[in-house]
Amino acid sequence: MSEKLAEAALDQLFRSARTYNAFLPKDVSDEQLHALYELAKFGPTSANCSPMRLVFVKSQAGKEKLKPFLSEGNRAKTLAAPVTAIVANDYEFYEKLPQLFPHADARSWFVGNQELIDRTAFRNATLQGAYVIMAARALGLDCGPMSGFDNAGVDGAFFAGTPVKSNFLINIGYGDASRDLFPRSPRLSFGETCRVE
Amino acid sequence: MSEKLAEAALDQLFRSARTYNAFLPKDVSDEQLHALYELAKFGPTSANCSPMRLVFVKSQAGKEKLKPFLSEGNRAKTLAAPVTAIVANDYEFYEKLPQLFPHADARSWFVGNQELIDRTAFRNATLQGAYVIMAARALGLDCGPMSGFDNAGVDGAFFAGTPVKSNFLINIGYGDASRDLFPRSPRLSFGETCRVE
Repeated sequence: MSEKLAEAALDQLFRSARTYNAFLPKDVSDEQLHALYELAKFGPTSANCSPMRLVFVKSQAGKEKLKPFLSEGNRAKTLAAPVTAIVANDYEFYEKLPQLFPHADARSWFVGNQELIDRTAFRNATLQGAYVIMAARALGLDCGPMSGFDNAGVDGAFFAGTPVKSNFLINIGYGDASRDLFPRSPRLSFGETCRVE
Repeated sequence: MSEKLAEAALDQLFRSARTYNAFLPKDVSDEQLHALYELAKFGPTSANCSPMRLVFVKSQAGKEKLKPFLSEGNRAKTLAAPVTAIVANDYEFYEKLPQLFPHADARSWFVGNQELIDRTAFRNATLQGAYVIMAARALGLDCGPMSGFDNAGVDGAFFAGTPVKSNFLINIGYGDASRDLFPRSPRLSFGETCRVE
């Protein structure tokens, strides 16, 4: 049985963590991106279907490819971020189920059921995107997630000819609290959100 | 700037955490459910839209209400779990944007754009569901998330007459590793999932 994590860890993961718009001029290494994935991959998905695909855009060329599809308000900060992760959904995730869920013929649950494929890919890749955010924070990195961009444009530039489609973006680096960090917006209370039955 | 969390914390959140089917006979208090929400609420959503709604089903009466809509394979374990959280999406989340995102008229971005409403509610409530899983683990609790149930049935029983619809379920408690814990399924490698550009 696990214990509650230390208060400082809860702060880092949730209470003090913020969505950063500006990052310190400090590189995020490929090794850190590997470490990030090696944590995030363990988060649960239904039937272990693991439909998320990730492109870590780091190079100048990669950022230039992304640039035309960023919304006005997200453009400058995304070009300046050390890394921008494209969280994407593989709509043929079920082809990997014989490897990922070997104890049943889970592939057959999906083939031909496009509505279930679409819902499963979107829900589970989104869960995995949240695990990426939490894993980044656990590694001492900061995030700036956003969904304001031209998905079809990004898909054409990064995923042409594949069954993969973009979901959302996450800028990753070391947050600069001295620039463009807005006051924390209010959250809904327990009573506004939850009930116990 | 944050440091990487201790290895034991990374284990608890990701590497040793498992999807439990059986739980120890140990109560999860309402205070713990409040603490769980008070962490999870801080996870980022687009324009702070916070569309997740939660029902924590704890009572015998609540479990009986849920029972007919659980898939065969999920029924017994869910009835036996200390708590089953119904993660749900509020499709009128935008009505709370004046409170949640006071610096812009964000409500007007959504009203009348049903496709954007649907996508935003589903994506962001799913992100928040993942934050609930991670917050539970951070508090020393274990989870068993699942999407195998009759969504329309659950919506009729728990959310009739509201714009809220069920997304997925999470059994919550203290995992019993001695019962019904399957070996960890394989995960996709970095190379199968990610690329750096």
